[in-house]
Amino acid sequence: MAREKNYVSEAVMRRMPKYYRYLTDMESNGIERISSKELSQRMGLTASQIRQDFNCFGGFGQQGYGYNVSELRQEIHNILGLTNDNNFIVIGAGNLGQALANYTGFEKEGFTVKALFDINPRLIGLSIRGIPVYDIDELETHIARNQVHMVAICTPKEKAQEIADKVIGCGIKAIWNFAAIDIATPPDVIVENVHLSDSLYTLSFRMNDL
Amino acid sequence: MAREKNYVSEAVMRRMPKYYRYLTDMESNGIERISSKELSQRMGLTASQIRQDFNCFGGFGQQGYGYNVSELRQEIHNILGLTNDNNFIVIGAGNLGQALANYTGFEKEGFTVKALFDINPRLIGLSIRGIPVYDIDELETHIARNQVHMVAICTPKEKAQEIADKVIGCGIKAIWNFAAIDIATPPDVIVENVHLSDSLYTLSFRMNDL
Repeated sequence: MAREKNYVSEAVMRRMPKYYRYLTDMESNGIERISSKELSQRMGLTASQIRQDFNCFGGFGQQGYGYNVSELRQEIHNILGLTNDNNFIVIGAGNLGQALANYTGFEKEGFTVKALFDINPRLIGLSIRGIPVYDIDELETHIARNQVHMVAICTPKEKAQEIADKVIGCGIKAIWNFAAIDIATPPDVIVENVHLSDSLYTLSFRMNDL
Repeated sequence: MAREKNYVSEAVMRRMPKYYRYLTDMESNGIERISSKELSQRMGLTASQIRQDFNCFGGFGQQGYGYNVSELRQEIHNILGLTNDNNFIVIGAGNLGQALANYTGFEKEGFTVKALFDINPRLIGLSIRGIPVYDIDELETHIARNQVHMVAICTPKEKAQEIADKVIGCGIKAIWNFAAIDIATPPDVIVENVHLSDSLYTLSFRMNDL
């Protein structure tokens, strides 16, 4: 599928999953068609914003008809790369790593946790929802022998850069980072951060501002 | 402390926790003083951006000297409201709710999980790191009788709005929402979202774009 994705801004990119989420909900609620006005009201965006966003991908919908919900959802599904199977491994089998492994919601969209890794001997050898916890020493061999598309880092922040360097050395190009540190990576490696403490402090800041 | 916080943009607000994170790390590494240029290089911002951000709060630092790391960290600590004790409760004692309760990092900054709530009889009555899991039916009574500053929603998305309405009805003004839905709230209630699937799909989108 030929798409002009090079010109997609960070802001548009961040909105695409949100469109997908709303369209998935609408589809499961039996809504077949929606105007950009209605969609904009539901999502708290302007109709013109929505049209502009979709124009980044060639535009969807038809003047006067609006959007076919299922079709639009499918288009965005493709744009987000959810047609692919994405295997990921989780480094750090603590609370958060285990929560990711236990959560089944991502699998429905093709994201499957295949293994966890840890340094803790009490965790190594366990299995979380059938997913094995391996010794971190086996990380490089595992990546070499299996298809691993993404790595989630759920280690303490002190270990995160070292782990990132190691998996990047193994050819990994996509990191989902939960450690409270901004990891340095080469330009061809993508990092998506979930900084929970930043989120909590933003909430605190805004509470303070009330 | 008199501050002009009304004019702080979303972007500045999002950067404040990041400054705090970097300054905390620098302080624990024994760095006493830093120029805005050095700080900007570490953080991937421009020096002028940093000065502008800090000017929103009256400005810190001294021409030619730079910033005293501990002092600046303390200023941002105050701005973020981390001087306060913030009690929060977690609704939904599943994987993610338990991970939040088990994580001790937030406590160091004054955020203490005081209770969890669930509908699952197998979870009710348990205690997670000493924190009790109560029946969701006790939620309103609990909020009335205890100081609860924030509520983390870790329920399935289908329940999130109902829970939000309930706690807002009890006077809660700050919600940390982990459910994969944008909850509707009155203007005086703050919602901070952690949409893990949005984050994962953004990563997927960018992988697809490589």
